[in-house]
Amino acid sequence: MEISELGEFGLIKHLTKDIKNVNESTIKGVGDDCAIMQYAEGKRVLVTTDMLMEGVHFDLQYTPMKHLGYKSAIVNISDVYAMNGTPRQLVVSIALSKRFTVEDMEDFYDGLRMACELHHVDLVGGDTTSSLTGLAISITCIGEAKPEDVVERSGAKETDLICVSGNLGAAYMGLQLLEREKAVFNEQLREAQKKGQTLEPAQPDFSGREYLLERILKPEARKDVIERLAEAGIRPTSMMDISDGLSSEIMHICEQSGVGCRLYEDRIPLDYQTAAAAEEFNLNVTTCALNGGEDYELLFTVPLTANDVVSKIEDVRVIGYITAATEGKKLICRDGSEFDLKAQGWNPLQ
Amino acid sequence: MEISELGEFGLIKHLTKDIKNVNESTIKGVGDDCAIMQYAEGKRVLVTTDMLMEGVHFDLQYTPMKHLGYKSAIVNISDVYAMNGTPRQLVVSIALSKRFTVEDMEDFYDGLRMACELHHVDLVGGDTTSSLTGLAISITCIGEAKPEDVVERSGAKETDLICVSGNLGAAYMGLQLLEREKAVFNEQLREAQKKGQTLEPAQPDFSGREYLLERILKPEARKDVIERLAEAGIRPTSMMDISDGLSSEIMHICEQSGVGCRLYEDRIPLDYQTAAAAEEFNLNVTTCALNGGEDYELLFTVPLTANDVVSKIEDVRVIGYITAATEGKKLICRDGSEFDLKAQGWNPLQ
Repeated sequence: MEISELGEFGLIKHLTKDIKNVNESTIKGVGDDCAIMQYAEGKRVLVTTDMLMEGVHFDLQYTPMKHLGYKSAIVNISDVYAMNGTPRQLVVSIALSKRFTVEDMEDFYDGLRMACELHHVDLVGGDTTSSLTGLAISITCIGEAKPEDVVERSGAKETDLICVSGNLGAAYMGLQLLEREKAVFNEQLREAQKKGQTLEPAQPDFSGREYLLERILKPEARKDVIERLAEAGIRPTSMMDISDGLSSEIMHICEQSGVGCRLYEDRIPLDYQTAAAAEEFNLNVTTCALNGGEDYELLFTVPLTANDVVSKIEDVRVIGYITAATEGKKLICRDGSEFDLKAQGWNPLQ
Repeated sequence: MEISELGEFGLIKHLTKDIKNVNESTIKGVGDDCAIMQYAEGKRVLVTTDMLMEGVHFDLQYTPMKHLGYKSAIVNISDVYAMNGTPRQLVVSIALSKRFTVEDMEDFYDGLRMACELHHVDLVGGDTTSSLTGLAISITCIGEAKPEDVVERSGAKETDLICVSGNLGAAYMGLQLLEREKAVFNEQLREAQKKGQTLEPAQPDFSGREYLLERILKPEARKDVIERLAEAGIRPTSMMDISDGLSSEIMHICEQSGVGCRLYEDRIPLDYQTAAAAEEFNLNVTTCALNGGEDYELLFTVPLTANDVVSKIEDVRVIGYITAATEGKKLICRDGSEFDLKAQGWNPLQ
């Protein structure tokens, strides 16, 4: 169905008609000039926003709309966890061109809702408008935390342990796979068009690589890690999520905390599929893990005294420690050689 | 200066280095995964978001970047006033293509900051990224209000008076003027190019029309009206700001309140410049006022008993009253004839 059949308000009504709010802090959602919230006494309110542009942050040739909706919500929800907070509400703005249908928007909202339900987040408002070119998505997520629970980037101290959840570099390798298959398909399409033939859209064989695709197309926010840390009685001294790459993120923590660091290459967690794909693409897997980005894992520091406890937490690995700023920001390689870390991760403006 | 010289984090640091937060509720602004706020006990938190796309919501051929920054903030701030709230924080996301310079972004931020300072709003975060095509702007504004002060769209009651601030249709006429001059300039440019000549960018003569241009390029949010209503002890029963057009907005209030309305054509406030320009363009000035949009005036209803008080408030006019839903949504023309109101205002998706 063409979106013009419904218009802006018809489309919003259609997409949001089944939304039920689950949080006590949500007083009123979609339908007025503002959404209305009320947080319990003394709670800190956390706000984060991310913009996703077609052709820059996602490629619709291989990104299903439902996955895109899911991921758009997750990348924002992840930022609230990265403050050690609980996400509560989300507003979503979309600008779309005429080639999108009502069904596309339904798929996008299905994904958005899935992420919201999983993380008990209420979809409370937004803006739906048109774009002359591609799809633009902007999401703002609002969360809460007790003042004493909030973890900023600036609290890392000398001798703190540097920890990371999950594994790194998989999303980047997933992207390489998708880009390669896209190039192959587009080449076949050009050949077929030259011969006046039609080309059936073929499903490339990604067997044994499913994990890598999932990491780029359907990343998860590490609520489980936040919960396990709380259960273990650990409050990180600093934390952020890894969206641009481990290397650039640890440098943010060091700069904002006024410290240095030593990261150990052999401690960086890698999945088997990531290592295998890196070899196939003739890429250095450590470089992929350091600079790949989009993993949405948590990077955090804990006091040295928490070593025994943090080491036992499932899916968390100690990868180095914090030093004085004068000692620099170093990567210690498997052979013992040392390098200065460089922020070579995702930078959309370079 | 090219933006790539600074990169994403360099640009953000450059643009936000002088920001000073003025609100007690702002705990931490730019620089972490989330901004951190804390509102006083019992306060409602209001959140609104708007997306502005190049070529759809603004035309950079005649919109200076500074004005665009100002307007982008104002349209969001206006939504908080429309809930009878006080705007406090703002996050801004921008996606820009390579043709924009650091100076363009400085101008945009200058405008943004001007609006924030005027309304005592803190710029607490955002996202700066790239776009393959035009400029995309997404702003989320956060405000607060006591629960008993919040005014929704759904509270209008039979016999309530319908009021509007300022005057209507001026922004629409300003847009017509700019579009006409743009067409003239582009035609001259084509002619000059045909002859191999260069064309000096000429400043069209807008004398006597300054107000219309200001209304489209630099709209204001009616904080003053909210303050005057509070001083007069009037809490509107329903309220919204006029962004799409009086006709479509009063219909929202009627539908959400389950009522009808009677609007009087001869009561709709018009500026002299709007009327003169409408005549020149051979447009019906009432149609411009009803459907023009972008005026960012406040539309609200008050109990009939407030008639004497509201009639004395500067720059506020009673333009009709609320009826039972069964009586429909009517415009009463100067000659006494009645018409059904139609939502023919701005609809980006039709």
